[in-house]
Amino acid sequence: MNDHEVNVGILGLGTVGTGVAKILLTQSGLLKTRSDLNFKLKAIAEINWNVKRDLNLDGIQCLTDAKQLIADPEIDIVVETIGGYEPAFSFISEALCNRKHVVTANKALIATRGRELFKIAKENGVGLLFEASVGGGIPIIKGLREGLVANKIESIYGILNGTSNYILTRMHQDGLEFEEALKEAQVKGFAEADPTLDVGGGDAAHKLTILGSLATSSTLDFDSLYVEGITPITKLDINFAKSFGFTIKLLAIFRALENGLDLRVHPTLIPNTHLLAAVNNELNAIFVKGDFVGNTMFYGPGAGERPTGSAIVSDIVDLSKGLLLKEGEPSSYLSIDPERRMELAPINAIKNRFYLRFFTYDKPGVLSKISGILGERGISISSMVQLETHEKDNYVPIVLLTHKASEEAMEEALREIDQFDFVKDKGLRLRLF
Amino acid sequence: MNDHEVNVGILGLGTVGTGVAKILLTQSGLLKTRSDLNFKLKAIAEINWNVKRDLNLDGIQCLTDAKQLIADPEIDIVVETIGGYEPAFSFISEALCNRKHVVTANKALIATRGRELFKIAKENGVGLLFEASVGGGIPIIKGLREGLVANKIESIYGILNGTSNYILTRMHQDGLEFEEALKEAQVKGFAEADPTLDVGGGDAAHKLTILGSLATSSTLDFDSLYVEGITPITKLDINFAKSFGFTIKLLAIFRALENGLDLRVHPTLIPNTHLLAAVNNELNAIFVKGDFVGNTMFYGPGAGERPTGSAIVSDIVDLSKGLLLKEGEPSSYLSIDPERRMELAPINAIKNRFYLRFFTYDKPGVLSKISGILGERGISISSMVQLETHEKDNYVPIVLLTHKASEEAMEEALREIDQFDFVKDKGLRLRLF
Repeated sequence: MNDHEVNVGILGLGTVGTGVAKILLTQSGLLKTRSDLNFKLKAIAEINWNVKRDLNLDGIQCLTDAKQLIADPEIDIVVETIGGYEPAFSFISEALCNRKHVVTANKALIATRGRELFKIAKENGVGLLFEASVGGGIPIIKGLREGLVANKIESIYGILNGTSNYILTRMHQDGLEFEEALKEAQVKGFAEADPTLDVGGGDAAHKLTILGSLATSSTLDFDSLYVEGITPITKLDINFAKSFGFTIKLLAIFRALENGLDLRVHPTLIPNTHLLAAVNNELNAIFVKGDFVGNTMFYGPGAGERPTGSAIVSDIVDLSKGLLLKEGEPSSYLSIDPERRMELAPINAIKNRFYLRFFTYDKPGVLSKISGILGERGISISSMVQLETHEKDNYVPIVLLTHKASEEAMEEALREIDQFDFVKDKGLRLRLF
Repeated sequence: MNDHEVNVGILGLGTVGTGVAKILLTQSGLLKTRSDLNFKLKAIAEINWNVKRDLNLDGIQCLTDAKQLIADPEIDIVVETIGGYEPAFSFISEALCNRKHVVTANKALIATRGRELFKIAKENGVGLLFEASVGGGIPIIKGLREGLVANKIESIYGILNGTSNYILTRMHQDGLEFEEALKEAQVKGFAEADPTLDVGGGDAAHKLTILGSLATSSTLDFDSLYVEGITPITKLDINFAKSFGFTIKLLAIFRALENGLDLRVHPTLIPNTHLLAAVNNELNAIFVKGDFVGNTMFYGPGAGERPTGSAIVSDIVDLSKGLLLKEGEPSSYLSIDPERRMELAPINAIKNRFYLRFFTYDKPGVLSKISGILGERGISISSMVQLETHEKDNYVPIVLLTHKASEEAMEEALREIDQFDFVKDKGLRLRLF
């Protein structure tokens, strides 16, 4: 590093990589004023250079071989924006082994293989930062790791998937069915051609794993999270939720309970009076409760070239300060300790309020049978709606809101109810905030 | 610093100082895990030790002389929670001159004398941090300075004064008049015996000066801000705003315009669809637009022992990392450059939409005279309401919403309208978001 010049290399020039390059090329004066450092985009490695990009790359090494960039002794910080598991994992670990700091937006990789990567970073005395992996441009990682450093994190409630939130907003505000809203999101570029990871809850679960790890300074096992997506939600459910004063959101939940951690992703009925209910369209928000600070919320764009670029560059600036540390001092990058593992509380014991929706054949005794099964399991009903039918098949929707009940009791009750011959298909179970 | 032990001294053991002490005493394990540093509360200087406090101060030096603490060579970081201008200014500058890092929650001091203090800090190569000075426990300073470091900040809209927000919320939700809501806020401890600084907008203006300084990496002249408080707002105005679909909030506004900066604090009608309209009671929120990230919002408790303590301790942890820097490296604490000054745009040229409320004598021709004056100045009306009166004095309220007009044109028009003999007292002018 000469005269505090920081050399940056980018792996992958897709949407996110382009955002990072734009910031490094256009905001260098601003970054110099704010950090007293000169940031220089030295090299980019990208397989496909035949794409037209709105970038002036004069003076920047345009490579096709990522390994050449990773091996360059002049590069201080490597930005990985390739995505996916391989070759991203190999490139990041090689860069760390070459004692380069690494910034990534790769939530899937951090959530599932973070433990290995943080270990390699620690062994090599370098930093691996990932602000862009959760909440796009929202500085939530920094907020949790540094801003709320004095707090035991008691709970986190996050709207972490922009695609799902866009779809649910269109269903709520404009009465679309799930499939219509999804198609629209795909046309607008908010949803992938294969939307499974988004609408199935997997993407939100990746991000929740990262937030939970930060909150507990440990690594968590992504595969043990309870995950449900928004696919089974219909216009009918949205309207029932509305009539009870709720908005349905795909919510990622972290709670530090006495018997372990509660981490779940599922559609949730949020009271309209809660700020999270007002987070609409493709936007993200993270509601965090700390034992000293109380309730806080961070809100903003969860994806996109420019917001994600903003987050990555904030990591670059942070890491560049580490270049100024005395030799041998603790790097203090590692608020996730790869040696520390935390266990999840068993889901069965967790208690929630539930929303249940069944289609039942319209005949006497149906309601008493359903409420009887619930009652046997100690589940009490707080509200109930049954609508008239004008359909030929004579099935009517019944919706129940329950008081708090254990996941186990509800699971057993639903299994019994679904077996009644007057119940069409399976009932839908959602949870209340 | 032995074995990465960081010694902290606190000046003043009031509400905020107590919060800091509690965190340092109870969360040391958590802070060690997260930062790899041992934080030790070494000394507290406080004039009045005869107050019962819920703190175990065994092993901590309890001093009455602040100078003794500031002179202690073992203390690395001094926390100033005395408040006010003097002796706080002298203590902070002396501590900085003794090459100690300083953390303060003192918004009035940073807003009005920050330029001098940052200069002293820079000269001595130490840090002066102030996360708790704006937004209490919300990590907004860090968010702006580091999280959004890659962005030119285009605008900030802040609900920064908890007292005013509590009063306005009670007026909105429960139909209280200003005086009733203020009295209630005083009973609940949300308002001081002399509430001028809060309800008059001065406190929000202090905080806005700090946010504007951070956004522009410069120092701003607090005295040139345009400031209006919430005192003239009545239940009637709240109800009119409601009927138009707005919520009235005391808003602190920063905008980077082409001809300079626009910084103002005044009551503002916010559309109910905007997230800021849902920020209620004593809570704060800051809505920030950056050129890359887009719109973000930070929300949480703006005051109180525990949230403010949380913010101060995050500053302590940040500064402690600076203790590990190589000698002679840039400290990178100073995102506010004391040598850099920014000018405000002339308020007269700024354009706003306005809410105008008059009490006028109920006789023919009144409306046409008022709208005539507005029309002469090029101010066009977007909505109008006149209510019937059942009062004996025959004065009726008229409310107008205007399209965009310059502050100057509106000022002149109001001066003329107020002179009509059919206008009782003076008209009220508020601004729209």
